[in-house]
Amino acid sequence: MAFHYLTNIALDKAREEYIALLQENGFAPKTEVIPVQHSCGRITAKAVYAAICAPHYPASAMDGIAITASQSFGAGETSPVTLEEGDFTIVDTGDPIPEGRDAVVMIEDVVKESSGRVKLFAPAAPWQHIRQIGEDICAGEMILASHCTISPAAIGSMLAGGVLEVEVIRPMLVGLIPTGDEIVAPTANPKAGDIIEFNSSIFSAMLKEWGAESISFPIVPDKKELLAAALAEATEKCDAVVLNAGSSAGREDFSASVIAQQGGVLYHGIAIRPGKPAILGYCGEKPILGVPGYPVSGIIVMEQLMKPLVDAWNCRTRQAPDYAEAILSRPVLSGLKYKEFVRVRMGRVGDKLMATPLNRGSGVVSSFMKADGILEIPQGLEGYEAGSKVSVRLLRPLTELENTLVAIGSHDPLLDELADMLHLADGSTWMSSSHVGSMGGIMAMRRGETHIAGVHLLDEADGSYNTAFIRRYFPKGGVRLVECVGRSQGLMLPKGNPLGISSIGDLTREGLRYVNRQKGSGTRILIDYLCKKQGIDTSKIYGYEREEFTHTSVAAQIVSGTADAGMGIYSAAKLYDLDFLPICMEQYDLLIPDYAWDTPMVRRLIEVLQSEEFKKRISALGGYELHNPGKVRERF
Amino acid sequence: MAFHYLTNIALDKAREEYIALLQENGFAPKTEVIPVQHSCGRITAKAVYAAICAPHYPASAMDGIAITASQSFGAGETSPVTLEEGDFTIVDTGDPIPEGRDAVVMIEDVVKESSGRVKLFAPAAPWQHIRQIGEDICAGEMILASHCTISPAAIGSMLAGGVLEVEVIRPMLVGLIPTGDEIVAPTANPKAGDIIEFNSSIFSAMLKEWGAESISFPIVPDKKELLAAALAEATEKCDAVVLNAGSSAGREDFSASVIAQQGGVLYHGIAIRPGKPAILGYCGEKPILGVPGYPVSGIIVMEQLMKPLVDAWNCRTRQAPDYAEAILSRPVLSGLKYKEFVRVRMGRVGDKLMATPLNRGSGVVSSFMKADGILEIPQGLEGYEAGSKVSVRLLRPLTELENTLVAIGSHDPLLDELADMLHLADGSTWMSSSHVGSMGGIMAMRRGETHIAGVHLLDEADGSYNTAFIRRYFPKGGVRLVECVGRSQGLMLPKGNPLGISSIGDLTREGLRYVNRQKGSGTRILIDYLCKKQGIDTSKIYGYEREEFTHTSVAAQIVSGTADAGMGIYSAAKLYDLDFLPICMEQYDLLIPDYAWDTPMVRRLIEVLQSEEFKKRISALGGYELHNPGKVRERF
Repeated sequence: MAFHYLTNIALDKAREEYIALLQENGFAPKTEVIPVQHSCGRITAKAVYAAICAPHYPASAMDGIAITASQSFGAGETSPVTLEEGDFTIVDTGDPIPEGRDAVVMIEDVVKESSGRVKLFAPAAPWQHIRQIGEDICAGEMILASHCTISPAAIGSMLAGGVLEVEVIRPMLVGLIPTGDEIVAPTANPKAGDIIEFNSSIFSAMLKEWGAESISFPIVPDKKELLAAALAEATEKCDAVVLNAGSSAGREDFSASVIAQQGGVLYHGIAIRPGKPAILGYCGEKPILGVPGYPVSGIIVMEQLMKPLVDAWNCRTRQAPDYAEAILSRPVLSGLKYKEFVRVRMGRVGDKLMATPLNRGSGVVSSFMKADGILEIPQGLEGYEAGSKVSVRLLRPLTELENTLVAIGSHDPLLDELADMLHLADGSTWMSSSHVGSMGGIMAMRRGETHIAGVHLLDEADGSYNTAFIRRYFPKGGVRLVECVGRSQGLMLPKGNPLGISSIGDLTREGLRYVNRQKGSGTRILIDYLCKKQGIDTSKIYGYEREEFTHTSVAAQIVSGTADAGMGIYSAAKLYDLDFLPICMEQYDLLIPDYAWDTPMVRRLIEVLQSEEFKKRISALGGYELHNPGKVRERF
Repeated sequence: MAFHYLTNIALDKAREEYIALLQENGFAPKTEVIPVQHSCGRITAKAVYAAICAPHYPASAMDGIAITASQSFGAGETSPVTLEEGDFTIVDTGDPIPEGRDAVVMIEDVVKESSGRVKLFAPAAPWQHIRQIGEDICAGEMILASHCTISPAAIGSMLAGGVLEVEVIRPMLVGLIPTGDEIVAPTANPKAGDIIEFNSSIFSAMLKEWGAESISFPIVPDKKELLAAALAEATEKCDAVVLNAGSSAGREDFSASVIAQQGGVLYHGIAIRPGKPAILGYCGEKPILGVPGYPVSGIIVMEQLMKPLVDAWNCRTRQAPDYAEAILSRPVLSGLKYKEFVRVRMGRVGDKLMATPLNRGSGVVSSFMKADGILEIPQGLEGYEAGSKVSVRLLRPLTELENTLVAIGSHDPLLDELADMLHLADGSTWMSSSHVGSMGGIMAMRRGETHIAGVHLLDEADGSYNTAFIRRYFPKGGVRLVECVGRSQGLMLPKGNPLGISSIGDLTREGLRYVNRQKGSGTRILIDYLCKKQGIDTSKIYGYEREEFTHTSVAAQIVSGTADAGMGIYSAAKLYDLDFLPICMEQYDLLIPDYAWDTPMVRRLIEVLQSEEFKKRISALGGYELHNPGKVRERF
């Protein structure tokens, strides 16, 4: 088998060849025999036949008497037949029919005489009111075909048919080997340079969802002989192995050569992004998959290459995933050489299902958690323009997306609290926020892409908030401005304010490192305005071009010591235990378009905004003033 | 709280009041703290916030050197800046940025000098090629809202955010108590009158699928004090209890009074069928559900009353089940007083999605296993006529139904083998058989309701098979007759033929008990024909009106000693180790309509029929002759 070093082979071709090669080498499911009671959700290894009939005896279907039908022949209204005590048996529903009897007469149709004899006024048909043997299941009948998933009712049917044990497919056992010198087990106190090893936990959970099991092996340092030993042990114990490389350059080559030594490598390098450096290795019939260290790359490689193997093991044809047509809210560029997997957030706004690309960094694992779908851009395409109709593979059911409140606009930690309260109030309502700044929110609303937008836009002319911008960008109206909170904006500073900063003017000081917010955000507009008003040359502020997208990420840079000051809201400073120099109170409101106003999601949002619980939770964050949240300030 | 004895209350009302009453009494989920690694699929008890930032340190995004950006200012093509050894640090991707540095220059852009110094020909922007702290997740940010199901990526996000343990909803623990004197643990050797206890296993599997756990308690005999003790123990240990009554009359009353003693009973009797005798009891905040003993009734009561409680415990809004519009192939009658739940088999034939009602006996657990959907007939409706368009709640995904070969017609055990081989050949193809006899199959095909029909119809005129009937019922053609097997028909007799039966003429003997097949089946037509030809008066054959629907069920009656003879095929006699008196070889063929001929399912069926494996498996059953199975005999 040729060893293709750092190939750029198409995914479909590579996958097909990989599975074919493994199957040629003997890749096939193993089976095990387990008690039927524990078999729910398992897959039959072969057809299951009933051992006994159900019912296994002729049973009375009524309360009454069991008789020999022929003794009742000739009975009529005027010519009753009398049965002696020995000629009938009293039976309850479910009781066995005694030998020699072949009919049941309902107790209502029996006239008892004091002598103990009974009178019948109608003949009984043979086998009337008797549950025949095998009415449910006949011995020898096939209960379940091969490769069927066992349902609760199938468990009942097997037990009724006298089948107590069943041969099922043993779940594929996948060994997970994390590698890398800088990799450490999950901790809340990592040192700088430590990379927290959470990929094994993600992969293990994915495998469980697919119907496989896993063993997580200890972290292997970057030593070839240690990796070789770990791989040998895992291959011995497991049906497949995943080598999860660290993220340093050249790490994958290292894995590839160790795999090649112990078996073979079909391909090293697949034309997908993220996930290119995947290694399609094997040891005999056992897959040895080399997975890139970045979590998003790893997840894509696992779902594109390991899931098909698990499905094959489980004798399941790959279920076609659910796709939905959606409209891209932003352009997406793609490399011609790769098939790209882009995580998107989705939401139904009006009659449009929108898809918004998420952060494409391979290291951003939270983007996979937040993703509602995956946009797959075929190899050879340069991408899609904003407004394109695209087909998105769904990661959440469409009904959930239909009930998701889409918030695009300015960031405030209160949005997360709102999302939580909305979902707590109604488990079928969700909220999805994208932080693109106040102006980004207004633009999204103009395009009909969002239900609400958080805005705090200062009108430089008169120091008023929001209304001037709304009039400018919605000249024909069609939106409502809903009161949310007043919040304290100011300079976040390291604890104790070591540099003694006392005003915005201090930001130009030599050696002071500022961290800014992105252009278009209300906070950026505010600092730009304040500097202009005070005649401060922003090109003199070191780091003024360093942009973060949220208040919390600005605070995070300061607390970690990579910046000395940043503009933001009090609640973010409080969260990070930073000093705070208040500059002004500003109005943070929610803009809601008419097209979303009458949706159940928005109605519920208004209820939550008006609740006492909202006031309580937001006040606890600090730095907020709440008057009449949820009240319509003005209709435009 | 009033105790309504044997009420007939509407399901929706009863359920709503039941949940409300329990919640008033304090019914609410309990939580537990578990390691994040084991939390996949679990439900968050409250919002989860990040403890640390991810990345938690500024990391190099490239291989290169880390510098202080300001030292590079002014560098250009013709005016390089030189950095001394102490002014830069070599970094790999993922390495931490040393204190005081704030930019990374890619190794490609660095010119190394032998002195150890480096030259830069372009200025570096502050923070270029550096993964900022919190790029993925910021400390204090909400990672997951309350009551969210934890995904693999969410596990990664929590671990990245320094969250090692998470508070989740502890699965509801349901105690299952089977009761009844005649109830026995699952066995392959039950005695007459024993009722095999498989309901606990079904319920336990259903609960697991819904996200709850269960304990199965030992079987409790019908003694009030024993039941009371078992109930007290289960209520103490569990969050809810299911009392599964035996099927004897009056058993439920017994349960109801024990529940009432220890707590209360809201309703006893719900207007549903099956499932009417359900008991909606409680002990404080704990539901005590009395479930009828018949398995189908029990399953319906569990899904209608216990599942909503599990969903409420798990803070899940009930997901709307999938429904599909289907056409009823047979009429269904319903009692006006009840909401009826009718199990149906389904299949897509041509452009019609067909629904065929299954055996409605409450004891027939296999009907629930075979069901593809549930037809819910509202209270107050008398039922539906054949051909009605009805909305069916799906138990299998629609895509599976689209790939199901529908077989309606004559029974032969080879159909089960065919189903198994079809599914083995292609995991996405299924087969569903209904045994309604040859004539039933022809009628279904005329109505466009089946893909294939097994037929073996003797033309009394000339002793030929099938063609005469096909010409009569399909005068315009439109069907193909496909060769299947020749099979040996004869009299199945108890082992050793104790009555010394040697011909059909013996069937009229005094004391001999015959068991027949249903009218319209090919086997019934055969015996009717044979008797007529030999001048045998069938009214003289005892049990001639006792009808079974399959060869195996006829054999089952004989082996169990409730019949002395029955007409059937050799393979059924062999399966039950019966004696067999061959009468004739007959042709069992498959009729396939033109409208189904070109479907992938039928094409695959023909491939299977023509395979060597088919010949091998069918020959092993015994009594078959195989010439050219899969060959089109004639096109009509």
